[in-house]
Amino acid sequence: MTAPSMTTPDPARFSLNTATVRAQWTLAQIIDGCTRHGIRMISPWRDQVAKDGLKATAVRVRDAELVLSGYCRGGMFPAPDASGRAAAADDNRRAVDEALALGARCLVLVVGGLPKRGDGTPASKDLAGARAMVRDGIAELLDYARPAGMPLAIEPLHPMYAADRACVNTMAHANALCDELGDGLGIAVDVYHVWWDPDLRQEIARAGRARSANGKSRLLAFHLSDWLVPTRDMLVDRGMMGDGVIDLPLIRSWMEDAGYRGAHEVEIFSAGNWWKRDPDEVLATCKTRHAAMC
Amino acid sequence: MTAPSMTTPDPARFSLNTATVRAQWTLAQIIDGCTRHGIRMISPWRDQVAKDGLKATAVRVRDAELVLSGYCRGGMFPAPDASGRAAAADDNRRAVDEALALGARCLVLVVGGLPKRGDGTPASKDLAGARAMVRDGIAELLDYARPAGMPLAIEPLHPMYAADRACVNTMAHANALCDELGDGLGIAVDVYHVWWDPDLRQEIARAGRARSANGKSRLLAFHLSDWLVPTRDMLVDRGMMGDGVIDLPLIRSWMEDAGYRGAHEVEIFSAGNWWKRDPDEVLATCKTRHAAMC
Repeated sequence: MTAPSMTTPDPARFSLNTATVRAQWTLAQIIDGCTRHGIRMISPWRDQVAKDGLKATAVRVRDAELVLSGYCRGGMFPAPDASGRAAAADDNRRAVDEALALGARCLVLVVGGLPKRGDGTPASKDLAGARAMVRDGIAELLDYARPAGMPLAIEPLHPMYAADRACVNTMAHANALCDELGDGLGIAVDVYHVWWDPDLRQEIARAGRARSANGKSRLLAFHLSDWLVPTRDMLVDRGMMGDGVIDLPLIRSWMEDAGYRGAHEVEIFSAGNWWKRDPDEVLATCKTRHAAMC
Repeated sequence: MTAPSMTTPDPARFSLNTATVRAQWTLAQIIDGCTRHGIRMISPWRDQVAKDGLKATAVRVRDAELVLSGYCRGGMFPAPDASGRAAAADDNRRAVDEALALGARCLVLVVGGLPKRGDGTPASKDLAGARAMVRDGIAELLDYARPAGMPLAIEPLHPMYAADRACVNTMAHANALCDELGDGLGIAVDVYHVWWDPDLRQEIARAGRARSANGKSRLLAFHLSDWLVPTRDMLVDRGMMGDGVIDLPLIRSWMEDAGYRGAHEVEIFSAGNWWKRDPDEVLATCKTRHAAMC
């Protein structure tokens, strides 16, 4: 099913997205776990950092000599009114500050879906309008993040999240936003969200060809998990690499052909399986599967 | 949220996809229900027809003076081996024969996902290979359906079904297949599957511009339901028109701008809600919502 000549991935590229064991461990415990398992890169979430404290986390990350392959996450730009959008802009600037304090390589953006009311229900059916809010919100945030030197990484989310999480659902759309908005903006490629796209190879190649003024690639992150058949929950039923149908070596080869040499970040939301297991077993499995399957 | 100048849809365009009340009624009961509710078009499913009998159903359809806006469904082309693909080809030719016997306007194709083993589990991760099997399968079926005068309508399914139901997931892909395979092939546009696509308007317009040798449009069907937030099941939690976030009048306007003048087929899979209700109430609600919301 995959080209037999593919080399196995470099274990040093392994990064743990901390959502993978978020149900079992605090961020401090995750950092300790990474040290035990010889994991050198993580990508933590804002709520986990807030719980443990930003300064305390920055110290722990430094002491453990961890690199942050990314910081999750900014975004959620659309809102029904100007005050809601201003609040999102404020919050996103704080996310940039936190990413800088933690030395993250990029701030991942989950851009948001349709504008929501206070109770979380959709306030509009205007998808094109939401996409315009996303473009405007990223443009404004870039004015803050670019001079600070914090790259922003748009993560195109699977189209099944278009209404409620992210209305950027294809690599082509993310590439178009990068073309329009310029330096300091790139893409986080998550196999779970984009594996189905018939244009995936060409859009990864397009992202690889696009270089910023300082020669940096648009390809800022590469997230791994697997698509299970059947998928029992739209949000928290992702598979461990190898348990699903995504041809991971093929997509990795496309990333490498496009010049990507960054982290392989494992991010598995799995309420029914991996979030219920011993987190040490989860980390060990992530590492083994990464080496064998990706 | 929608252009105030939009006219309401012509009630005569209303068609009932019989899956909408399949949990409550046999096909014979659905046909009787359509007569009571003044519904002039239906789109039945093969398993329902098989249960009631093809000849008996053809007689009932004729006696009720119903038009079949489509017949559901052919497709499911990919298989792990040649014998599996030959069996699919045989079955698809039978589907064409049934569609002809019932006088359907088109045979809808749900093309299939990755090849499956006998137990239904995926036999391959080769998505490009599955897409090639789909192209070859449709090409072969066209040789049978085209001279018989039965149009085939590719239904692009939502990307969340790429693995297990259909690996044609965008209008652009369906248009490309139509470009390649020629006359006798068109597209069934189902809002549930394509509403998220940033290229939807342009791809509907492209389909509308493409005409076969006999001047027929590529736009063969238009299916209606709504995308609920949250969606609690990936297969059987579709919404009644107006209960979700799809801008139905906007997409209808794109279809009409592209020259579509066919049926508005209501197709709602809803295990938790509409399949539990009095089917007469469901039909009445479908008609009212169609007139008000689409």
